[in-house]
Amino acid sequence: MSDETTDGVGGFEHLLSEVARNVPTQSPYASVTSIDRAGVVDLSFGLPAPSLLPIEGLSSAMTTVIETDAEEALQYGGGRYADLLPNIVHEHLANRGIDVDDLEITNGSSHALDGVCRTFIEPGDSVAVGIPTFTGVLQVFGNHGADIVPVPVDEDGLDVAALERLIDEREYAGKPVPKLVFVIPNFQNPTGATLSVSRRQRLLSLAQRVGCLVVEDDVYGDLRYEGETPPTLTGIDENDRSLHIGSFSKTVAPGVSTGWIAGPEGLVSRIRPMLSPGTPLLTRSILAAYSEDGQLERRLTLVRESYRARRDRMLRALDRHLPPEASWIRPSGGFFVWIQLPDAIDTTPLLERAVENGVVYLPGAMFHPDDSPRSTLRLSFSYVDRQDIDHGVAALGETIRLALDTDA
Amino acid sequence: MSDETTDGVGGFEHLLSEVARNVPTQSPYASVTSIDRAGVVDLSFGLPAPSLLPIEGLSSAMTTVIETDAEEALQYGGGRYADLLPNIVHEHLANRGIDVDDLEITNGSSHALDGVCRTFIEPGDSVAVGIPTFTGVLQVFGNHGADIVPVPVDEDGLDVAALERLIDEREYAGKPVPKLVFVIPNFQNPTGATLSVSRRQRLLSLAQRVGCLVVEDDVYGDLRYEGETPPTLTGIDENDRSLHIGSFSKTVAPGVSTGWIAGPEGLVSRIRPMLSPGTPLLTRSILAAYSEDGQLERRLTLVRESYRARRDRMLRALDRHLPPEASWIRPSGGFFVWIQLPDAIDTTPLLERAVENGVVYLPGAMFHPDDSPRSTLRLSFSYVDRQDIDHGVAALGETIRLALDTDA
Repeated sequence: MSDETTDGVGGFEHLLSEVARNVPTQSPYASVTSIDRAGVVDLSFGLPAPSLLPIEGLSSAMTTVIETDAEEALQYGGGRYADLLPNIVHEHLANRGIDVDDLEITNGSSHALDGVCRTFIEPGDSVAVGIPTFTGVLQVFGNHGADIVPVPVDEDGLDVAALERLIDEREYAGKPVPKLVFVIPNFQNPTGATLSVSRRQRLLSLAQRVGCLVVEDDVYGDLRYEGETPPTLTGIDENDRSLHIGSFSKTVAPGVSTGWIAGPEGLVSRIRPMLSPGTPLLTRSILAAYSEDGQLERRLTLVRESYRARRDRMLRALDRHLPPEASWIRPSGGFFVWIQLPDAIDTTPLLERAVENGVVYLPGAMFHPDDSPRSTLRLSFSYVDRQDIDHGVAALGETIRLALDTDA
Repeated sequence: MSDETTDGVGGFEHLLSEVARNVPTQSPYASVTSIDRAGVVDLSFGLPAPSLLPIEGLSSAMTTVIETDAEEALQYGGGRYADLLPNIVHEHLANRGIDVDDLEITNGSSHALDGVCRTFIEPGDSVAVGIPTFTGVLQVFGNHGADIVPVPVDEDGLDVAALERLIDEREYAGKPVPKLVFVIPNFQNPTGATLSVSRRQRLLSLAQRVGCLVVEDDVYGDLRYEGETPPTLTGIDENDRSLHIGSFSKTVAPGVSTGWIAGPEGLVSRIRPMLSPGTPLLTRSILAAYSEDGQLERRLTLVRESYRARRDRMLRALDRHLPPEASWIRPSGGFFVWIQLPDAIDTTPLLERAVENGVVYLPGAMFHPDDSPRSTLRLSFSYVDRQDIDHGVAALGETIRLALDTDA
């Protein structure tokens, strides 16, 4: 065995790439996943509700695949169901007003973003990212050594005017324009904010003017619970400046771990060969057999209704249980509510007290590229039962009140 | 739409990474996959025999997973079957005399190799690779901008003495030692050669002396048809200089697209966070339910017998149908026989005539990092029925004779 006291990998430290040397070996979620959840309401992760997992549907899709196309589905190539999946996604995007030239199926949205990074990002290249953002996004960019340029997010989503100023300042200082702008336009993770239509248009114009690429991660886009659906960026992009990432993980099941990247043909054809290898074609076959003949759209109607009720329940509980010092954006879709507390409260150490009171959340610091203390936290209403939402939010309210008292 | 006449991706050429700019957008297999195979014996790709795909077994494993652990198997996390899979692989490796500290499940062997590259290879870094080699390996290294240092492969596998000379010459010329040595020790793809035990030991000593890492891709290791099994490199490595890559794609089914990377804890823990994201946990659950309780080892016995018979059939057919100018290495396992023809024959243009005569093979040029004409070709005995092996080899023999006649 190696002598790990000297350099960590037994004489191989010197072989590590510069990026790998700086990537933490521990999961960023380790401090939260290690919490004992017995008797605690889990509002932490964005897990689909267990009761909404399509167990029967996927089971019958498996039978269909095995009975009608097993030899091909288990072989390299994948057979007719796997072949069908891009068409199903094309049709789904068309239903949402997105007419794309080309798309590629991926092993989920992070795999798609990873492929975008491999195609465009060299260590030190800058990417503009709406902050706070999903931890997984920070991980993917970090694994490519990207320099993250944080852009504020408010109740109308990514602050495009602030991004414009940042880019102008960078150009003035002789710094390069970020190659990519990463945005979660609908029900942003974690803030729940939706990018306004005027900002969408302005972002595309900006990208066209400065010559960068907009990557829209729209994994929650199918989960709108109220109001009109704004056009996707890729749907209104006339200059081939944007890529659209989507996923079945939130709407069908995380276990299928399947998503897509869609956009102009010239762009997708560059990304396709850079996507990391490993295509679980059996899963894709099962998913296609599950989704064909309009079944996907029928499912979306069903899950939207159920998640809307959960969201409403959480919003009512927040109104009832949280002190007036707390504020949040009302999300019109997705899985999350982002809570802003008074600046004096650091939600990372607060988590321990929250768990004692019976609730787990994700501390705001997890959604930032630096380690500064944060007075924000994310709640997920997707996973637990409705009455547990009430209990969890009540426990959170109590935790916050105690912290405010201690503080005062 | 973009004006693709000017720069290919509508004004985004300048954003591409240096590596992506040079990666071909077309599959290296396109010229072979596009061949109309009607009435043609397909000896080209390393596909498992359709009759050996475990359709019943996987179907019943799916039922088990759905009936006993569906909620977890479809969720993030994956549940108890997915959790079981690393133990099954640990046990399988122990059966082969490999006692590893740590392993990680991957989306197949290419995904594992990709993760190794991300951990160690920066564009321009050199890697020593036994040539000819599997095209997918050249693709993965190419996608990381690696500089491939070709090392000859003969009937005893990678020529370690030649590698040693190459490294010495490089050091003398002030060039860096390759960071990685990539080797397929058992029934190498495409040559079928097995690395001798003395070369295995010498390779590990060399790696220890010069401070590089050996990556052994052992996806065919479970498919030995005769003779004694030599120890794996990772099995006899005492200095944490090697990583072991394996896969279920050849032994269970390509559609599950699942493999592993195993080795010293310090090394695997560095690679784990660099593996590209996207984990199809449902597939892993099905595979674990299929493999548990010794079922995997029972299956291996079965498939080994069937592939041994196919190999014997091909070797007999080669003896009968190929002219004396052709030679090959007798493979003691795996899927392939590598045919060496007289230098004057270029097997790339020859393929068209072979198809006319009723057989498809893979031209030798596909297994080299450059485009030089090659007088070699690879036959796979894994996929077609036994009598088709005879027909295909007879058609190849006729094609070669005609080429020799034309040549003379």
